[in-house]
Amino acid sequence: MTDLDTLSVNTIRGLCMDAIQKANSGHPGTPMGMAPVAYTLWQRFLRFDPADPIWPNRDRFVLSEGHASALLWSLLHLTGVRTVDPEYEVLGRPAVTLDDLKSFRQLDSRCPGHPEYRWTSGVETTTGPLGQGVATSVGMAIAGRWLAARYNRDDFTLFDFDVYALAGDGCMMEGVSAEAASLAGHLRLSNLCWIYDSNRVTIEGHTDITFTEDLAARFLAYGWNVTTVADANDLGRIGRACHSFRAEAERPTLILVHSHIGYGSPVEDSPQAHGSPFGPEGVKATKRALGLPPDADFHIPDGVPDWFARGIGARGGQLRNHWEKTFDAYRGAYPELADELERIQRRELPDGWETALPTFPADPKGLASRDSSGQVLNAVAKAVPWVLGGSADLAPSTKTRLTFGGAGDFQPYDRAGRNLHFGVREHAAAAVANGMALTKLRPYWSGFLIFSDYAKAAIRLSALMEIPTVHIFTHDSIGVGEDGPTHQPVEQLAGLRATPGLLVFRPADANEVTETWRVVAGLRRAPAALVLSRQPLPTLDRTRLGAASGVAWGAYVLADTDRGEPEVILLATGSEVALALAAHEELTAEGIASRVVSMPCWELFDRQPREYRDRVLPPAVTRRVAVEEGSTFGWDRYVGADGAIVGMHTFGASAPLKQLLTKFGFTPERVAQVARELVARG
Amino acid sequence: MTDLDTLSVNTIRGLCMDAIQKANSGHPGTPMGMAPVAYTLWQRFLRFDPADPIWPNRDRFVLSEGHASALLWSLLHLTGVRTVDPEYEVLGRPAVTLDDLKSFRQLDSRCPGHPEYRWTSGVETTTGPLGQGVATSVGMAIAGRWLAARYNRDDFTLFDFDVYALAGDGCMMEGVSAEAASLAGHLRLSNLCWIYDSNRVTIEGHTDITFTEDLAARFLAYGWNVTTVADANDLGRIGRACHSFRAEAERPTLILVHSHIGYGSPVEDSPQAHGSPFGPEGVKATKRALGLPPDADFHIPDGVPDWFARGIGARGGQLRNHWEKTFDAYRGAYPELADELERIQRRELPDGWETALPTFPADPKGLASRDSSGQVLNAVAKAVPWVLGGSADLAPSTKTRLTFGGAGDFQPYDRAGRNLHFGVREHAAAAVANGMALTKLRPYWSGFLIFSDYAKAAIRLSALMEIPTVHIFTHDSIGVGEDGPTHQPVEQLAGLRATPGLLVFRPADANEVTETWRVVAGLRRAPAALVLSRQPLPTLDRTRLGAASGVAWGAYVLADTDRGEPEVILLATGSEVALALAAHEELTAEGIASRVVSMPCWELFDRQPREYRDRVLPPAVTRRVAVEEGSTFGWDRYVGADGAIVGMHTFGASAPLKQLLTKFGFTPERVAQVARELVARG
Repeated sequence: MTDLDTLSVNTIRGLCMDAIQKANSGHPGTPMGMAPVAYTLWQRFLRFDPADPIWPNRDRFVLSEGHASALLWSLLHLTGVRTVDPEYEVLGRPAVTLDDLKSFRQLDSRCPGHPEYRWTSGVETTTGPLGQGVATSVGMAIAGRWLAARYNRDDFTLFDFDVYALAGDGCMMEGVSAEAASLAGHLRLSNLCWIYDSNRVTIEGHTDITFTEDLAARFLAYGWNVTTVADANDLGRIGRACHSFRAEAERPTLILVHSHIGYGSPVEDSPQAHGSPFGPEGVKATKRALGLPPDADFHIPDGVPDWFARGIGARGGQLRNHWEKTFDAYRGAYPELADELERIQRRELPDGWETALPTFPADPKGLASRDSSGQVLNAVAKAVPWVLGGSADLAPSTKTRLTFGGAGDFQPYDRAGRNLHFGVREHAAAAVANGMALTKLRPYWSGFLIFSDYAKAAIRLSALMEIPTVHIFTHDSIGVGEDGPTHQPVEQLAGLRATPGLLVFRPADANEVTETWRVVAGLRRAPAALVLSRQPLPTLDRTRLGAASGVAWGAYVLADTDRGEPEVILLATGSEVALALAAHEELTAEGIASRVVSMPCWELFDRQPREYRDRVLPPAVTRRVAVEEGSTFGWDRYVGADGAIVGMHTFGASAPLKQLLTKFGFTPERVAQVARELVARG
Repeated sequence: MTDLDTLSVNTIRGLCMDAIQKANSGHPGTPMGMAPVAYTLWQRFLRFDPADPIWPNRDRFVLSEGHASALLWSLLHLTGVRTVDPEYEVLGRPAVTLDDLKSFRQLDSRCPGHPEYRWTSGVETTTGPLGQGVATSVGMAIAGRWLAARYNRDDFTLFDFDVYALAGDGCMMEGVSAEAASLAGHLRLSNLCWIYDSNRVTIEGHTDITFTEDLAARFLAYGWNVTTVADANDLGRIGRACHSFRAEAERPTLILVHSHIGYGSPVEDSPQAHGSPFGPEGVKATKRALGLPPDADFHIPDGVPDWFARGIGARGGQLRNHWEKTFDAYRGAYPELADELERIQRRELPDGWETALPTFPADPKGLASRDSSGQVLNAVAKAVPWVLGGSADLAPSTKTRLTFGGAGDFQPYDRAGRNLHFGVREHAAAAVANGMALTKLRPYWSGFLIFSDYAKAAIRLSALMEIPTVHIFTHDSIGVGEDGPTHQPVEQLAGLRATPGLLVFRPADANEVTETWRVVAGLRRAPAALVLSRQPLPTLDRTRLGAASGVAWGAYVLADTDRGEPEVILLATGSEVALALAAHEELTAEGIASRVVSMPCWELFDRQPREYRDRVLPPAVTRRVAVEEGSTFGWDRYVGADGAIVGMHTFGASAPLKQLLTKFGFTPERVAQVARELVARG
């Protein structure tokens, strides 16, 4: 440990303390304890170029204990990370200036309370909700192996990056990390390293009050390599642990670091160190204990930035330059693969990918939207080689398996496989998919809609990060039938639709499924949830109905009266659209002028110009009936005070679908009757 | 293994096959494989009286792999379980008749697709969503230990029941079970036994494709006793494993049973055995292989029911009779404790419990609703000794610690403690609380509202089961401030409100908090979610405002114009009520007649008679402004087409609260302005 090592570590600690003190808000405990670990990793190991923090083969650093964001902000500042992503950032600006650090946790600062992807260059994923970072890191490691398998050639190693995640006790207690660790162990992701900040202290007290398992033994049971660092301040031991990770060829690695929360401060090793500033006196006392000038705030000693420049900066720059030269040569040798890689980085799709999209002939018998989606997904994936994904052990039911030649399984023995077996681990599946999306692949995962509940926290993060993860949910209503209320979603659509930025699609037939995928595959900055049926849906005869391309507008007129303005509008999604059409026919036969609006995606409809929305739902037509086999919650927005909603007010029941439709009132007769009553009411 | 053992096991298998075949729907794989295990447990070990399946000291049996419900239905039928719960069931009826079995998965059958609590006597908890059953069983085991500590006396052992849960590969892969297992190991719940049906087959194929961890080693790492049964058909080995569980005094036990999915059938050991009937020919072939008459459906050989009556029936009856005599003597010796126990069983509270509820004087500075809730919770818990709970490692922030003398911590060394440390395990916390509620204690758990996402699947089950679990959520909006969007809930309120049967309360001040608890503590058949602020809320001056007791109606007029009908109504919940009041004052000063409606609980309001609802929200007053620091989703129901919603349309941001309120428009000026514009629009 050189003087500059010590000085650098303590400079990081000083910046963190000062930022938190100035904000009078934040979490100093972890930065103080883990600064030596983060420092060693960044300065000596991380293959990361501050001048180009989105270089595709960089090692990934995930701060899973996101409340320690000050640690990351200090590193981004001291290493001089720049913003280079043309899509989302102001080009060339330092990721974190000293002024940013000084405005930690203030409005519009590049140093918010938790790391936010897209907002601050150098942040690989948004973290804070515990366990998410480590689970997401598994997806990055999978992506790394997959990219290597597809794009490396004997003479070109384009991808061999490692993924590091720093995790605390909270991350280790969360179920999502357990799921992800089990999966990573199975997949033998030896490019993955979790560093466990074991400080024995949580918010409620010593971990002994609730967390006494033998964590190292647990990870060995998952098939991980486990190594221990007895003292977080021992840079040599940290370095040897990192070498042990790099030398491991078969297993992911857990480095268990015994650390001291709030190291050096008066509240060291106590829960008080976790989430409150030390106070001006506490900060001074800590600085004194660490040999820092007690009265200098945001102090960066001469030599420290240069020391980082000579460490991570020089190493990263060299590696990146070498990589770029390699890639130039690769482009000459493998122009098509190089083109793919460039499209991946720009989140573009291959030219002409849409030509493969199937259309479906009218068919009264039809097919389940899970089935049509399976066909369209396969077409998309065949056209876009970096679409890959899987299911939480439900692929035969969700129909998401890629079945074309060469799709294969992603396994330790086949890293180019495109079908993932997530196991019965929905939460990890969604987080892993996020990790793959952050590596710019186009991932999907699937499960039953009811189990979106298990994965909600990761679904939310995909929306918050604005990444195009595709969440595929089938068995989307009481249409599940005999499995009963435990498996019949009711409120899930409302919860997903209320999530800002998430596009929720519930297509009505096979052609709406195709149009949904056309939109979804093209998304670059938003995740989507596909909500699909278990039961067959008739493929509508579009010769006499609105075109399915209306999906792109979120809602469109599917069937209309030929007698001018309708007296009543029937709004429906998914499996209930055919029901609305049947009611429409009944009403038409009676001489009641009605319109059917298919509303596969509320979010897209809400974004259309008022003129379009008013054309689909004329404000003058206030008699409206919404039909959906889900909670009525939220539909009032479209039906208004004069409208009615045929929806679910209770949980479902276990019975064959036909009986359930009668029991809960999803029949053409009932819908027509509700519409008739509205019209009669005048 | 006697002939009657074999016959009984195969009778169970036959009934399961036939029920599933007749329904042409269901999951035969597990019942076929695990029938010998379930049989041995029930017939030889389970201390359960079919004549009184709610006897308080019965052993609990949880079918965590709920898709195997046919197995449970067969056992309930063959053992002759009766319905005795006066609150929810038809008294005296057999829980499951042969006709029920024959109408498996049909509408209104007592044999639905998955076990449903309350619907079929003998079901201890609703299962199906994987992992929930085992996690819930931990709560039952905690309750058992707690009841023993509080109510047993040297001369009276009222409680010593054990809790068994049958779990499959899916349960073991889910994160919630990992959280629960870690907690159970820490708590040394030696009254807990999970039986792991390891059949090596999941829906997507052999478990080798994704689940290759060393599960036994993992559970040893959690601090569990692990024992293995190499052959699920070896009743002797199963019995010895159960004895090993009973002999274990320190640790929970995992019995790892190697089983064969679809045992005896043509699809044995294949994924096809999991979730589809065997078909008429398959059933016949299986019956032949098992030595059952191939053409007799729903065949119950002579002697089998009597064999069960002489086994579990006789043992259970004896134990229950003995217990009742013990309890009679106990009532004489400890009348007050006996009275408590009887109230617990009836879900009643102690007389006069409400007298301790605090009221709060008007105070413009006020206090956070998390703080007032902490005070009220302590008052309730002091008055109701069987209120207990804890937090997912956030008690100092959620203010849910019971601090009065003797409350203590529930730990291996103190089983009477009433504060639980759930650890950073929200999902398990909610499921464990459900398990305690199913044992008729009054549990609560707490976390930040954003982390309700992690626990949603268990929250939903509390609603589906209609049990009074109390979910306490603080840090309920952008009011979180500097922690930023990862910690600021937006869509969570919508997702919870859309859940059927869940009462969601967002009280506006300390006195609304008291009234909320008055309702919540009295709930017997519904769970509640309390949504509380981190930041201080003024305690409103009720001398000039509507009384806080209006909480019981869900919504009430808090402030009104004195000039007849209002021109505009401001609707708000929680922290935004004071904001609405300030806007109301501004409008009043300008001569605009406005009303403020506090809406702490939509679900209760929706249940009021139309007359009351129309009094609070007169249909003629269509100019309405809703104010809530959450998604606007759902508010249209109350504001209508002519109204406006001041809410969140995006995620939040990291900044001090005051800056956020301006950024997102939650200021009296903005609310007044929106109201003014509505009024001007005419």
